[in-house]
Amino acid sequence: MNNIDICISPELFHLFPQKESVVVVVDILRATSSICAAFHSGVDKIIPVETLDKAREYKEKGYLVAAERDGALVDFADFGNSPKKFSTNKIECKTLVFSSTNGTPAIKKAESYKEVLIGSFLNIDSLSSYLYKSKNDIIILCSGWKGNFSMEDILFAGALAESLIKTNTFLSVKDVVQAAVLLWDNAKNSIYSFLDAAEHVDRLRKLGAEDDIKFCLQKNDFIEIPVFKAGLISKLSF
Amino acid sequence: MNNIDICISPELFHLFPQKESVVVVVDILRATSSICAAFHSGVDKIIPVETLDKAREYKEKGYLVAAERDGALVDFADFGNSPKKFSTNKIECKTLVFSSTNGTPAIKKAESYKEVLIGSFLNIDSLSSYLYKSKNDIIILCSGWKGNFSMEDILFAGALAESLIKTNTFLSVKDVVQAAVLLWDNAKNSIYSFLDAAEHVDRLRKLGAEDDIKFCLQKNDFIEIPVFKAGLISKLSF
Repeated sequence: MNNIDICISPELFHLFPQKESVVVVVDILRATSSICAAFHSGVDKIIPVETLDKAREYKEKGYLVAAERDGALVDFADFGNSPKKFSTNKIECKTLVFSSTNGTPAIKKAESYKEVLIGSFLNIDSLSSYLYKSKNDIIILCSGWKGNFSMEDILFAGALAESLIKTNTFLSVKDVVQAAVLLWDNAKNSIYSFLDAAEHVDRLRKLGAEDDIKFCLQKNDFIEIPVFKAGLISKLSF
Repeated sequence: MNNIDICISPELFHLFPQKESVVVVVDILRATSSICAAFHSGVDKIIPVETLDKAREYKEKGYLVAAERDGALVDFADFGNSPKKFSTNKIECKTLVFSSTNGTPAIKKAESYKEVLIGSFLNIDSLSSYLYKSKNDIIILCSGWKGNFSMEDILFAGALAESLIKTNTFLSVKDVVQAAVLLWDNAKNSIYSFLDAAEHVDRLRKLGAEDDIKFCLQKNDFIEIPVFKAGLISKLSF
């Protein structure tokens, strides 16, 4: 049996020192959904960068840049953090530089772990199936919002945990996993309306990103699993 | 309308800088339940101390000392962290020194806030009624377990939040509050069996503390509300 654990905030990730675990990083609204959408559209590589200065440097060197802060597009960037905008052949076979408020720092934090995968509802079935076959302990790292708990990330964590526990090859003794699975169980039949009052849904609506919310909450059955290694996100070969 | 928020780990408390809020500190299993039980038994004051060295110093000066680490009684102490043991007239009108793994550091962290109250299921009705009347913003600070999420603390937070939101004078826009209320809603009809697989319930059972678990999960309608101010816990006058 392998273990599943959930870290609800990158600021608590030091409590999860098990470097032999696979980390699934999630920022449903919207960074990890965007990254999954970009790989589904054929992007070759993504370079996640934490600072806007770094993103601007890459832009000046001629790279395509996606950059968002507090939900909004950054002025010099080609893309913000809208996953729908990555459904374009403009990024096919390209390297994209990516910087977002919460998702990018979370991905970077996991760098030293056995394997770092990028999860979203868009690729959850493929991810679950891969994790089932690869038989490692798993930590789901929720990006949250500036250190705080985000409902949409914990729901994804609950959904992934539930699907793995059902295989009878994973277990969890952790309170946080029980809580996430129960929250998912309450939400799963109407996730969009369940999240109607969620903080980041509200923030994104104010930015006119309703379509993105709907897009990110669909199980779109993307098969691509992005993996972060040595500073680069690429498509996992499996 | 006043706001309710929940901090699920003392390690995230820096994200809650609103010093004008009232903080309710909770460590259901068992520190804040024990403190409530001690005031119900007529203790005069409690001095919370973070280190065992400090607790030992007080012991050498002749104080009654309650001290626990990782659930177990510390050798030089008069009491551990068993709330049932505080149902005794031995502590009446006395000053007790108290040191526990998670609860004491959480109480100390809240020191600079407007008011710091000690909550448990034992005094939840009295606490809710006081908070309703006093009309302040509230942060419920869950002690958790060494920085991690504890189910019993989040359930208490959900129960208290639910009772305040029902008065229509409190609101919460926070995901974490919605999650806690929903978890409580799932648990409230059978909280003892709901917590059967909780991590700290398991730890306490291994220490033979089953009776304490049952005691802490009862709504015992204690009216005393302990308040922490200037290094001392005393009984709130209201």
